[in-house]
Amino acid sequence: VRGGGVPLATFLPGDGIGPEIAKAVRQVFEVASVPLQWEEHHFSPEVIDPSTSSMVTREALDSLLRNGLGLKGPMATPIGKGHRSLNLTLRKELGLYANIRPCFSIPGYKTKYDNVNLVTIRENTEGEYSGLEHEVVPGVVESLKVITEKASRRVAEYAFRYAKENNRSKVTAVHKANIMKKADGLFLECCRAIAEKNPEIEFEEKIIDNCCMQLVKDPSQFDVLVMPNLYGDIVSDLCAGLVGGLGVTPSLNVGDGGIALAEAVHGTAPDIAGKDLANPTALLLSSVMLLRHMELGTHADKIEKALLGTIAEGKYLTGDLGGKSTTRDFTNAVCSKI
Amino acid sequence: VRGGGVPLATFLPGDGIGPEIAKAVRQVFEVASVPLQWEEHHFSPEVIDPSTSSMVTREALDSLLRNGLGLKGPMATPIGKGHRSLNLTLRKELGLYANIRPCFSIPGYKTKYDNVNLVTIRENTEGEYSGLEHEVVPGVVESLKVITEKASRRVAEYAFRYAKENNRSKVTAVHKANIMKKADGLFLECCRAIAEKNPEIEFEEKIIDNCCMQLVKDPSQFDVLVMPNLYGDIVSDLCAGLVGGLGVTPSLNVGDGGIALAEAVHGTAPDIAGKDLANPTALLLSSVMLLRHMELGTHADKIEKALLGTIAEGKYLTGDLGGKSTTRDFTNAVCSKI
Ligand SMILES: CC(C)[C@H](C(=O)O)[C@@H](O)C(=O)O
Ligand SMILES: CC(C)[C@H](C(=O)O)[C@@H](O)C(=O)O
Repeated sequence: VRGGGVPLATFLPGDGIGPEIAKAVRQVFEVASVPLQWEEHHFSPEVIDPSTSSMVTREALDSLLRNGLGLKGPMATPIGKGHRSLNLTLRKELGLYANIRPCFSIPGYKTKYDNVNLVTIRENTEGEYSGLEHEVVPGVVESLKVITEKASRRVAEYAFRYAKENNRSKVTAVHKANIMKKADGLFLECCRAIAEKNPEIEFEEKIIDNCCMQLVKDPSQFDVLVMPNLYGDIVSDLCAGLVGGLGVTPSLNVGDGGIALAEAVHGTAPDIAGKDLANPTALLLSSVMLLRHMELGTHADKIEKALLGTIAEGKYLTGDLGGKSTTRDFTNAVCSKI
Repeated sequence: VRGGGVPLATFLPGDGIGPEIAKAVRQVFEVASVPLQWEEHHFSPEVIDPSTSSMVTREALDSLLRNGLGLKGPMATPIGKGHRSLNLTLRKELGLYANIRPCFSIPGYKTKYDNVNLVTIRENTEGEYSGLEHEVVPGVVESLKVITEKASRRVAEYAFRYAKENNRSKVTAVHKANIMKKADGLFLECCRAIAEKNPEIEFEEKIIDNCCMQLVKDPSQFDVLVMPNLYGDIVSDLCAGLVGGLGVTPSLNVGDGGIALAEAVHGTAPDIAGKDLANPTALLLSSVMLLRHMELGTHADKIEKALLGTIAEGKYLTGDLGGKSTTRDFTNAVCSKI
């Protein structure tokens, strides 16, 4: 945690249902007496900041860089050209090299699976997201996937460290090295090298296609999964689907020097925005990840327990969770359990 | 169908359980009086044919090219370097540009899903499978994804033709054009162009990560899916997982001039090979796809009905299907229903 006194964290509430679920988080944090102060930044999908070439303002970026801690709600991606994607800008400018998404079955929220408890760790800076593409001749396009030893080792190291710190026993490297022998081969080699240094953690390798089949057949066989950017994008969404979708799954991005940006990865749900109907669970669980990252484990546990308890109890659930409650009632229920 | 009289088809029984399940198919075809003669070719994972740089022999390739029809059992991929992958060799040498995998819930074989009925159509020749990779400097690898208008239009056209001929009402193009704007953008553009020419078929676009989440949440929303090579590889395995895995899902590869190679995509199961325990379902369903491709629909329907009837009845199931029967008893049960 940077700075003295109560740590500051940057809050980007986002659009659509963003402000409502952000309000829920602020309320819960207050009731839980979390020692943290928010610095709020808003931006509009219509306004591009020339200094960042995206809707992220320079002030918001500076705040994030200064505080090293952030929480982000959903933001609509503006359609059109001439600007950078909001997510890619944040990842790039903040050096967020790993994206961590825990997926666990939530008691009280029934899906087809009741035994999911895994974490995907995604390399967040390269691979298929290089942005290097060109038309060789008309009708023939090349797109470059870039894999580096540096980024692969870094995310592999993070995965093993995460496993150890979170009492997880196995890391699975997901790849397609039977086809991309050099690119995914390099990623896999790096994972193997880090695995050797961490013999107390079981290490396993799975080819991406088989991994997705196994996840669907029996997700309980997985623990921590680490993979290149695009596979992480795909597998993390697949896993979210197993436990009910993006409305109940958190996400944390981490970067050099301990910078961390937690985010709800669901959409802005414009149809229910402003109607006090939104489910703050994903943003709350993301904020819990941020607290753990800050080593505020006691506060994190307290909030998580109250949140999961509220869902398990089933009295005050929002519509997407199968209930009829408002965001406010749901949030009050969580607060009353703290 | 090429040639006169009874058509010839090339049969590659494969290794491990391959010969046993191949025998089952031959028996079923005989009982069903399928007007087709097999030309059998065997090869060994240990022997590389220098003229194909792989374990596929020149004779087998020539037979496939001559007959334009083939059925392939599982074959172990030899480990080591200096040879081409068997699957890639066949796809390349035979110009197999599309891979079709229907996935449907099988009555009598319970999984978490009971409402799956979809078909993945995978571009089979390019994309991430270009084989173009190099180390730029030590520790930095580039891998080229190649997307062409020609191959994209060809597979999109196939998907819409398939939808029409098989009374399917929707085609979903799966892509990541928000990131790979040029490469996946070209693929998507081609799908849109073909969709416009086929207004009677509903057309929809899904981003690959969201698509995988939706498949897990509610596969019944999908019908025909068409996508670039690697996404097809991933999504087809994911879908197989929804209905029980590769042991019950068929596959057909098609190419120019109507050439078709059906294949069971599961492994060789060396642990049960030679023990009369293997499940011939995937190879049988694949052979049914081959028959439909040959416009032998009546024979295809007869065999499929007997096979699914045997599974639904549940009296003679192999171990993987939850029973205790031998391959022989299972096959006899299928034959007795024809
Ligand atoms: C919106 C998109 C650029 C992004 C990605 O592909 O990384 C999203 O899918 C995610 O997972 O955060
Ligand atoms: C074995 C491998 C080369 C192959 C592929 O990646 O295409 C397999 O996964 C498949 O789907 O047929």
